[in-house]
Amino acid sequence: MAAWGELLAGVRGVLLDISGVLYDGGEGGGEPIAGSVEAVARLKRSPLKVRFCTNESQKSRGDLVGLLRRLGFDISEGEVTAPAPATCLILKERGLRPHLLVHDGVRSEFDQIDTSNPNCVVIADAGESFSYHNMNKAFQVLMELENPVLLSLGKGRYYKETSGLLLDVGPYMKALEYACGIEAEVVGKPSPEFFKSALQEMGVEAHQAIMIGDDIVGDVGGAQRCGMRALQVRTGKYRPSDEHHPEVKADGYVDNLAEAVDLLLQHTDK
Amino acid sequence: MAAWGELLAGVRGVLLDISGVLYDGGEGGGEPIAGSVEAVARLKRSPLKVRFCTNESQKSRGDLVGLLRRLGFDISEGEVTAPAPATCLILKERGLRPHLLVHDGVRSEFDQIDTSNPNCVVIADAGESFSYHNMNKAFQVLMELENPVLLSLGKGRYYKETSGLLLDVGPYMKALEYACGIEAEVVGKPSPEFFKSALQEMGVEAHQAIMIGDDIVGDVGGAQRCGMRALQVRTGKYRPSDEHHPEVKADGYVDNLAEAVDLLLQHTDK
Repeated sequence: MAAWGELLAGVRGVLLDISGVLYDGGEGGGEPIAGSVEAVARLKRSPLKVRFCTNESQKSRGDLVGLLRRLGFDISEGEVTAPAPATCLILKERGLRPHLLVHDGVRSEFDQIDTSNPNCVVIADAGESFSYHNMNKAFQVLMELENPVLLSLGKGRYYKETSGLLLDVGPYMKALEYACGIEAEVVGKPSPEFFKSALQEMGVEAHQAIMIGDDIVGDVGGAQRCGMRALQVRTGKYRPSDEHHPEVKADGYVDNLAEAVDLLLQHTDK
Repeated sequence: MAAWGELLAGVRGVLLDISGVLYDGGEGGGEPIAGSVEAVARLKRSPLKVRFCTNESQKSRGDLVGLLRRLGFDISEGEVTAPAPATCLILKERGLRPHLLVHDGVRSEFDQIDTSNPNCVVIADAGESFSYHNMNKAFQVLMELENPVLLSLGKGRYYKETSGLLLDVGPYMKALEYACGIEAEVVGKPSPEFFKSALQEMGVEAHQAIMIGDDIVGDVGGAQRCGMRALQVRTGKYRPSDEHHPEVKADGYVDNLAEAVDLLLQHTDK
């Protein structure tokens, strides 16, 4: 077992992944993971800073926060770092007009973006919209461009809903990369810029922060590469084989968010 | 311009790709590429051996040959090397029971194969059947297996129909590889075993054979790696950038199959 006191020394800020840590999505919105509602509440009453850092890209931030509040979580839109608004900033800065291959639920995040005569493709977790027809449309737009640009909101392999494991945006990003012979730019975890913007919003340094997530590569590996510590929860998409991942080793493994928060509140700020 | 006499010296057998060389698929079956019907007929009247080596995996060999005959081509089922029958041999040899993610048109090729309680996934160019739902089913089967096996009928990036470029099986193979952290086994071009079986069926050695195709990587690169010569036609999915491909250079480029056959009949067997 990890020496938790040593591991957690100096932690001032906590980054929480949402899906698979706070709740499992699914029919009717999904359900909270046991103990997570209470754990978030305790964390927010503590001296630790808290920020939610998610790759959720099927829903707008407003819809996501609305759902989480209905499930009992104390969370507001301003506390969430998500890839869609970060992508909008990039599009504006670079004068890019996207063809959107995204879920209808997140389309409103792009309301202020010019999508006429596209000069790039933005791909997000589109769910059922990942039809052969829609994949071909995105592919054809890219093949028509002299300098094809593909922005991907995250590159997660899969996530867990109450019904089981489902494909995330990553596999479809890889499909378009291979089809067009290009490399996508990832906005979201594990991109360092994305973690850094979350740290900045929280006002703590990387070495003072810890990430808690269910994704060994996207959450744990990504945060560690930015100089943060990271715990993996054994909920959500966690699989026992993650603890023997060939490249990434979490600083610690916990059964769920409740256990992580217990440890943080015991061992930090003493 | 290539010195054709030198390039074509000693050629005794010709391997022809089908889609993009003989015809472009599309609504109502598609249409022959100008001059190709006549070119195949001339080739078959010549002393050169001819074999059709295709990655077509939306149709059974019977359906494909039926279509080509209706378009005017002189071709029979026994002259076609295709990945579906090659896959059936592998499945039987290794006692594999596939979950099939394939086009309905090719399903009959697997009639003799046990598909109960699957211990592998076979993916082919499934067209509209590449829905999010079907991709998730294949993904979930692989994730349940202790030693996941993914067989892919080809790994083409895209092909051309009369309506434009369409995604082939390769991008979807890459998507499942990434999602599951595995590597697929490719049956079909550019797999060396597949080219070799076509050579064997034709009864010529690799150095006596030439491949004619529209795919710079799958046809040209694959054949060359087997010791064959290879021409790229400027029909089908050919794009001018193929002539500056960073890794593969064809032995020669021709406008279409008719030009290739003209050259072969002028310069071989003298």
